[in-house]
Amino acid sequence: MEINYLKNGFSVVENGKVIFTHTEEAPAIFVGKGKEKMDIYRGNFDIEDYVIERYPLKIAKEENGKILLSACPDSKPELELTAELKDNYAKIKIQSYDKALNRIWIRVPAEKEEFVWGCGEQMSYFNLRGRHFPLWTSEPGVGRDKTTEITFLSDKYNKAGGDYYHTNYPQPTFVSSRKYACNVNSTAYADFDFRNEAFHELQIWEIPESIEFFTADTFLGIIEQLSDRFGKQPKLPDWLYDGVILGLKGGEENTFSRMENAINHGIPVAGVWSEDWAGVRETSFGTRNFWDWKWGKKRYPNLDKKIKELEKRGIRFLAYACPYLCTDGDLYPIAEERGYFAKNSKGETALVDFGEFYCGIVDFTNPEAAEWFKEEIIQKNMLDFGVRGWMADFGEYLPTDDVYLSNGVDAKIMHNAWPALWAEVNAKGVAERGLTDEVTFFMRAGGAGTQKYCPMLWAGDQSVDFSRHDGLVTVICGALSSGLLGNAYHHSDIGGYTSLFGNRRTKELFDRWVDMAVFTSMMRTHECNRPYENFQFDQDAGTMAHLARMTKIHRHLKPYLKALSEEASQKGYPVQRPLFVHFENDIKTYDMQTEYMFGPDMLVAPVWQKDVKEWQVYLPAGETWINIWNDQEICGGQSMTIDAPIGKPPVFFRKNSKWADLFKEVKNY
Amino acid sequence: MEINYLKNGFSVVENGKVIFTHTEEAPAIFVGKGKEKMDIYRGNFDIEDYVIERYPLKIAKEENGKILLSACPDSKPELELTAELKDNYAKIKIQSYDKALNRIWIRVPAEKEEFVWGCGEQMSYFNLRGRHFPLWTSEPGVGRDKTTEITFLSDKYNKAGGDYYHTNYPQPTFVSSRKYACNVNSTAYADFDFRNEAFHELQIWEIPESIEFFTADTFLGIIEQLSDRFGKQPKLPDWLYDGVILGLKGGEENTFSRMENAINHGIPVAGVWSEDWAGVRETSFGTRNFWDWKWGKKRYPNLDKKIKELEKRGIRFLAYACPYLCTDGDLYPIAEERGYFAKNSKGETALVDFGEFYCGIVDFTNPEAAEWFKEEIIQKNMLDFGVRGWMADFGEYLPTDDVYLSNGVDAKIMHNAWPALWAEVNAKGVAERGLTDEVTFFMRAGGAGTQKYCPMLWAGDQSVDFSRHDGLVTVICGALSSGLLGNAYHHSDIGGYTSLFGNRRTKELFDRWVDMAVFTSMMRTHECNRPYENFQFDQDAGTMAHLARMTKIHRHLKPYLKALSEEASQKGYPVQRPLFVHFENDIKTYDMQTEYMFGPDMLVAPVWQKDVKEWQVYLPAGETWINIWNDQEICGGQSMTIDAPIGKPPVFFRKNSKWADLFKEVKNY
Repeated sequence: MEINYLKNGFSVVENGKVIFTHTEEAPAIFVGKGKEKMDIYRGNFDIEDYVIERYPLKIAKEENGKILLSACPDSKPELELTAELKDNYAKIKIQSYDKALNRIWIRVPAEKEEFVWGCGEQMSYFNLRGRHFPLWTSEPGVGRDKTTEITFLSDKYNKAGGDYYHTNYPQPTFVSSRKYACNVNSTAYADFDFRNEAFHELQIWEIPESIEFFTADTFLGIIEQLSDRFGKQPKLPDWLYDGVILGLKGGEENTFSRMENAINHGIPVAGVWSEDWAGVRETSFGTRNFWDWKWGKKRYPNLDKKIKELEKRGIRFLAYACPYLCTDGDLYPIAEERGYFAKNSKGETALVDFGEFYCGIVDFTNPEAAEWFKEEIIQKNMLDFGVRGWMADFGEYLPTDDVYLSNGVDAKIMHNAWPALWAEVNAKGVAERGLTDEVTFFMRAGGAGTQKYCPMLWAGDQSVDFSRHDGLVTVICGALSSGLLGNAYHHSDIGGYTSLFGNRRTKELFDRWVDMAVFTSMMRTHECNRPYENFQFDQDAGTMAHLARMTKIHRHLKPYLKALSEEASQKGYPVQRPLFVHFENDIKTYDMQTEYMFGPDMLVAPVWQKDVKEWQVYLPAGETWINIWNDQEICGGQSMTIDAPIGKPPVFFRKNSKWADLFKEVKNY
Repeated sequence: MEINYLKNGFSVVENGKVIFTHTEEAPAIFVGKGKEKMDIYRGNFDIEDYVIERYPLKIAKEENGKILLSACPDSKPELELTAELKDNYAKIKIQSYDKALNRIWIRVPAEKEEFVWGCGEQMSYFNLRGRHFPLWTSEPGVGRDKTTEITFLSDKYNKAGGDYYHTNYPQPTFVSSRKYACNVNSTAYADFDFRNEAFHELQIWEIPESIEFFTADTFLGIIEQLSDRFGKQPKLPDWLYDGVILGLKGGEENTFSRMENAINHGIPVAGVWSEDWAGVRETSFGTRNFWDWKWGKKRYPNLDKKIKELEKRGIRFLAYACPYLCTDGDLYPIAEERGYFAKNSKGETALVDFGEFYCGIVDFTNPEAAEWFKEEIIQKNMLDFGVRGWMADFGEYLPTDDVYLSNGVDAKIMHNAWPALWAEVNAKGVAERGLTDEVTFFMRAGGAGTQKYCPMLWAGDQSVDFSRHDGLVTVICGALSSGLLGNAYHHSDIGGYTSLFGNRRTKELFDRWVDMAVFTSMMRTHECNRPYENFQFDQDAGTMAHLARMTKIHRHLKPYLKALSEEASQKGYPVQRPLFVHFENDIKTYDMQTEYMFGPDMLVAPVWQKDVKEWQVYLPAGETWINIWNDQEICGGQSMTIDAPIGKPPVFFRKNSKWADLFKEVKNY
């Protein structure tokens, strides 16, 4: 890219395409001061801003290769910009001369018909145009739609209803259909506004270190650039392809007898995931894990032997951890004594309410604390114990009020940085034991940098339903948006997680979720927050058989999946991709968020509504497609209604795929 | 008041008390540009602002008696202020040099322990401190509390749930416990923010003509000033004291037979109010009036004779009108042909959706249209027909999009001005017939200037319940806040109005509402929007007797009420008053909004919750109080629990009131 200087302005241009421009008449940079109000309640934030000042820095003057920005022709410069330019890349460093400035609004030129995607893992809207997206890691909300009863009740009783933009994984990075990506280097609260026809407005609650632009000739090229920028994930462990991970809990007897039962019913089991391996506590939300990350002998008395026994049978044991320690656990007093927790203004451990219990936050900005967590928990208590995978839960709860961190940085700036720090602790623990190729862990929280450390995302806590903003369908949006930003691997709780206010998982929901999960990076079931009130796979012989068959199909696709994983490790392409990255000329694909490409050759259109027998599918133009269940050939470029019974989700592959023979065998299962 | 000039600033001061101040270090005036988004749906507005620029005009320089405000020492002045000063009064005229400026934020100095009241007729919070108040006339909301099911359902199905600040009658005027009042002369959208400790921030979406400050030694003095400024109401018609106004509808037979039945049960009836006098239509909300303001012969075939007959018996007939005409009525085509309706961009009549029917808005900025409405409807169809009172409903629905008015002013500026224009049409119609002392009409919509034209407010459409934000108790808040700004007379629909989503009026609610209404300016029942599903006074002999007895008490108080009306016409004191205007030294009274003074000598604490036998009452210090029901003497300055059965609402009077003998007789009813 290059910079063209204009009178009192400048443009950043790639091959004649204006990526960014600032002039006196149409200034792109506004600065000011704001005073925010942030209330946290169990991971749900109520955030308000009072903007005291906001004004454009109309005048941009070049001086010794730097650009000085000021409000008026004669006033002092307030910002200094320095550009770092390469082919297909520009980084504009920003320095503030006024330390009191704590707000910036940056306008990036837009076109009326432009599409925009990204901003982390978005659960409601893949195309971001027409809405604004506050970027702040938090609980994603229960219901996420102010017109539903569940959202209303969640708001009323738990302040937890959420809205379309709430996500565990926000990231101030977007991709435009104008074939560029933009990233703002800041972990401050941000709000990216794509509602204006003529510009995108990026609001950040600090003067960020820099803003970056990436261009490429293709969307895949942009993904590759972003994955180079943010880091790539290791290849998936080989065992992960071989079966489902069964989420089973309730103690040793229950967990393993149900696992054996599943195996006896022909379900290929790659692993058993017991999130309650460290113990449990009862709360009004349901049974919760006991947040003291080590083997809970009471609940799993022979787990040490069991893990070894499973290993011999090729079954991995997966566990659970999060970056907090409960006050009533054994690890808490150790970390407390060593001063490893974030502090309050009195110098005491800052306690966080997690819903009827309190925890300290291990302060990962303190290298000793991070080292301790990595060694004691990740390595000794988990890896050395034989654990080969885990849910690395949470990361979104760093409070902003009365919390002081070891590195001296404001908690409001570190809040969004926390998920990557948490990922790093996990990843280093694994890498130092040389287990990167053998172990996986999965996170819902994320941010810029997650890509480098977190090997696998999971889509967080869907409600156990088919709802538009919190059900099965949101998983696809999460996979596509995060995938564009260099997160190659994504999966979800089969059957969803959150059951509240009488909302219960049905057999139909579970079965449809299985159908989708086959065509993701990993199959893993979850009992949900209230197992005894919700449908479980092993209470129904039909579902057992269904899960067995569909898991075998997933396993059957191993060669294809391994190739995707190889590709991901080299180029950063996600396993699940929006249609448009392979069909750039088919504009209809630009706004699709319920269908996806599973690798380059397979198209999946999961059924995400209930009581459905048929399903409307769009197949992109310029390709002949084969229906995987009946070999029917279909010309692309049309919408069509096809049969979509449970067990035969709408899946198509390219006729001339080099994997066609493998795909054609799927129908024989 | 006087102005003191400071370096680059100035202060407005009364006897050493700083009322307003602006300095370079702490600028009080910010200007900028914004672009609003306003969506209207049946009187409910969804309003969002995008602030493009906001900056302080730090530099204030005096020049030939004017103050010139600019952003920087060397930049061009953007505003010019001119002060008009009198004793206890300052008016600061504002002129903008930049026509593009459409936002101003004015900071008025505040103190931590300050109370603030007013902003029109507020239904949820009397003391405004700690909250901000958007000022935009609209539907008040159904439920008005996002934690209630009714609000949720109203939002979901009708976008009508509302919130604490929604009101039919907003006014950019407030009274401070620092003994001053402040008024901004603008009808643009405004948002007064009382959340900051150090200042109140008044946001207005235009550069207003001026801002005024009023001071006085007492709160009553401030009320007097405001009533001088905004206008006073005529004395109440004498007949209004003599009984209840029965809201009866459903056609001639039903209305008048039920009236006779009420009279036969001993209820003193001052008037019959039939809102369906012009006809009805059925909608999903319930039976609605037919908006074609003339005698509906089909429903009331002998109404002309009936009115004369009633008159002879001392009973007035009251009707109903609003400033819109339905497209399927007889008046619509006349107004349409003459071009009396507000237009859209095509020059056609701008139609407004009122809930399953459409209307034209008579354009009161067109003098001919206003004249026509006044003559044809108010005078010929109503007054000359014998109507002696009416509900002058609505006034809040002027849309802001694609509506063009005869006076050429933007509909966004005229929206808040509409209620006063509507009041004026009514008042002039009455005055020109010489009937000002004989006729009343009552409005829910209001704004600055309503005081001069509207003789009586009514509290709008409460839900038929005891809820905190939309039930009986909100009426008190409405009376107190509007009363402070010079609206002497206030009353409400006895029993409430809105019954939706299974929310039904009970006998208990009706009876408690009667108990309160006795101690207001006017007693009037309402059948509510769904009469057949809700409790009516005449379906229960006990309630008939109760209404008879309580109406007689109201009538008994006529001499006192007449004295209050006399006082109101001279000094503008409202009939219902906050306790603190008579007990300035008792700080506990400053935050009270569920008790009120009924004139200077009587304190009323209506029971506003259900299933209550006792009630907690606070009696202000420095007075000996008499319980009106049992002559018990109580020393002020204490909270106490008293018996509060239906029919004996907590009411007290000053022991040494000159009306004590009159009050003592109340217990004999």
